[in-house]
Parts: sequence; structure tokens; C-alpha cells
Amino acid sequence: MDETAELPTQEQRYRIRMQRKKAVVDSAIVRADKKKGLLLLLTGNGKGKSSSGFGMIARALGHGMRVGVAQFIKGHSNTGEEAFFRQQNNVIWHVLGEGFTWDTQDLVRDTATAQRGWKIAQQMLQDSSLDLILLDELTYPLKYGWLDLATVLDDLKNRPAMQHVVITGRGAPEALYAAVDTVTEMHDKKHAFQAGIQAQAGIDL
Amino acid sequence: MDETAELPTQEQRYRIRMQRKKAVVDSAIVRADKKKGLLLLLTGNGKGKSSSGFGMIARALGHGMRVGVAQFIKGHSNTGEEAFFRQQNNVIWHVLGEGFTWDTQDLVRDTATAQRGWKIAQQMLQDSSLDLILLDELTYPLKYGWLDLATVLDDLKNRPAMQHVVITGRGAPEALYAAVDTVTEMHDKKHAFQAGIQAQAGIDL
Repeated sequence: MDETAELPTQEQRYRIRMQRKKAVVDSAIVRADKKKGLLLLLTGNGKGKSSSGFGMIARALGHGMRVGVAQFIKGHSNTGEEAFFRQQNNVIWHVLGEGFTWDTQDLVRDTATAQRGWKIAQQMLQDSSLDLILLDELTYPLKYGWLDLATVLDDLKNRPAMQHVVITGRGAPEALYAAVDTVTEMHDKKHAFQAGIQAQAGIDL
Repeated sequence: MDETAELPTQEQRYRIRMQRKKAVVDSAIVRADKKKGLLLLLTGNGKGKSSSGFGMIARALGHGMRVGVAQFIKGHSNTGEEAFFRQQNNVIWHVLGEGFTWDTQDLVRDTATAQRGWKIAQQMLQDSSLDLILLDELTYPLKYGWLDLATVLDDLKNRPAMQHVVITGRGAPEALYAAVDTVTEMHDKKHAFQAGIQAQAGIDL
């Protein structure tokens, strides 16, 4: 008797494996039935946090949504996305920072800048015509104490029910982890910068 | 003698800390003096991999670069970014997949689809007018053996010297980790889908 004839072929095994996978995915989709505005946190020491936020903006715009962006720390090299998205319809873009804190080196000034910035963020968080808000690098003003965490959490909580908010930046405080629906941490396993490769316009190392 | 008078104020400590930080950042920038097309891998089980790739596209377009996109697995809900970027100048967009493999459940067909797709990717990897190429979800055809890894690595290696390539997807093979300049892993620490919240158009859970 040829026993191998009764074994499933590679193709049959593949089909069985994929059918099992589909069943798992489908049943998770059925269970997930709540709709609401989501609060997403993209943190960790790796790259791709802000980029991911900008990608979500592109996706949202493709769905005809209106988007607001507040950049709390404006870097030197990340003007590409600003130039690009400012040309688009349905985007409101605010640059609220003055560069990384190790450039200004002035606590009073950084605090005042962040607090002015939060007033603008607050207006967006009360504007139900905005479907998605990106609070880019918001974790830094929280980490350095320029903004009051309780106030920020309160304003996030009281936003319009269907408004999505994406927060990016390293070193997010624990209370922010607790308050959001989704946390993704980015971690670099290998970095070109460490190998002496220069940061280059238009590409995020 | 009032010893506290000699202690630095909060503001002075802040300034010293930030000066130290600036020195570290500046010296790393000086050391990083090589320019070349970068090969970036965005992997891990978390969200934000493709979004991050799309954000990099936005940034690159903002810098006037030309961009090519190849989507190896086309999902059901991620048509927002396609709709959006297809309206833009300087973007070439190819959808090369037929949905997740647990939908098709057909190894021969998935393999043929991926191999047709790679021919198109190869053309982009030989086109020096493209400054940035996003190979979205390329890890899956590699993981499932639809594409020959050695061929793919070879084509990546032989691309134009200044062309940047971003590869996204879970389960990247070890050899891909070794071949790229930068690896970022995304990991979800908390996920709304697990709490029963539905995937919603325009927002990436």
C-alpha cells in the first residue's frame, strides 16, 4: 500500500492552512462591531512614527475625510510632507513648535510655545468637521512638562464621538498608554545612521 | 552660607541637559557623511508598516521626487491611499496582488500572481527616474515562497545607486534583515480590534 498517496499535497495543505486562517480572521471581524472615533498612539524609539501618521492622513483623504495636523516639534528636514499636504484639499496644517528642544535650550520659551500650540489643538478637538487629527510629536511637550497631561487627556476625551486622533512621539507617558485605543511601538533593529549614512532630503532614515 | 544658591535652577539644568543632547546629535550628524539610495524594511506584527511607507511617499513627493508603488497583497479596506496617490503627479501605482492569501487559498494562482508582479517591480528597480519605490507587503510572497528570495535580493542590490526602496510586511526573512540598511519593527502594545472595535474606512486600526 502506498501510504504517501493518502497524504495531502503541498497545495492541499496550503489550502487547509489558509481556510483555517480565514476562519480566525472572519470570526474576529464579526466580534468587532463597535464604531467610534479612535485614539491611536504611535510611540517607541524607532523611526516611522510620524511617517505612519502622514500615511494615515493620505488614506483618510482618499476616503474624502477632512484632516487637521498639529506639529508640536517641527524638525529641520521634515518639510517634505508639509509642502505636499498643504497643496491638498481638506487639510488644515499647523506648525506649533520651534524645532527640537536641544536647539532652543530655553524652558520658559518652549513651555509658552507648547501652550499656545495646545490652544490651537483644542480648537481642532472641538471641531466635528475634522474627521482625523494628527498631533505630531505631542509626546515631547508632555514628557518635558510644557503641557499639563490631565488637561490634554481631558480635551482628548471630550472630542467629537466620531473624530479619530493619532498621536506620535517617543516616551509617551503611561497615562497616555492607558487612555488610547491602540498603541503601536516602533523599534529600530538596524539603523543606517549608525553605519555613517547621512540623513537625506525626501527619505526618512 | 546658602548652599541652594549654588545649585543650578530648573531652567539652567534644562539648558545644560539640552546642550549635552545637542552635542551628541550634532556629532552623530557629522559622522554620518555617506549618501546613497537606502533600503528600508518596515516589519513586525504591529500596525503602521504600510502607513509609514505611504507617509514616506508623501514626504518624497513634497521634495519633488518621483515615486513608484507596488502592492503585492491588496487588502480590502486600504483603497484610500490608492485613490489619493493616484490623483498625484509623479506617482506610478501598481496593484499586483489579489487579496490576502486566506481569501484566494490557491498556491499555484498566488505564485503566478506574485511572479507576474515581480516582473513589474523589476522594471521599476531598473528605472533610475524613480527616486523612491515602495514594495508594499513584499514580505508575504517571500514568506510563502511565491518569489525566489535570491532573485529579489539580487534585483534590489542592482538597482540605481541613488534609488531608495521601502519594503513592508510581517515575517521578513532573515536574509532580508541582513540585506537592508534600516529595519524598523512595529509592535502593537494595545489594539482596539481586540476590544471589539470595528475596522473603519479611512482609519487604520
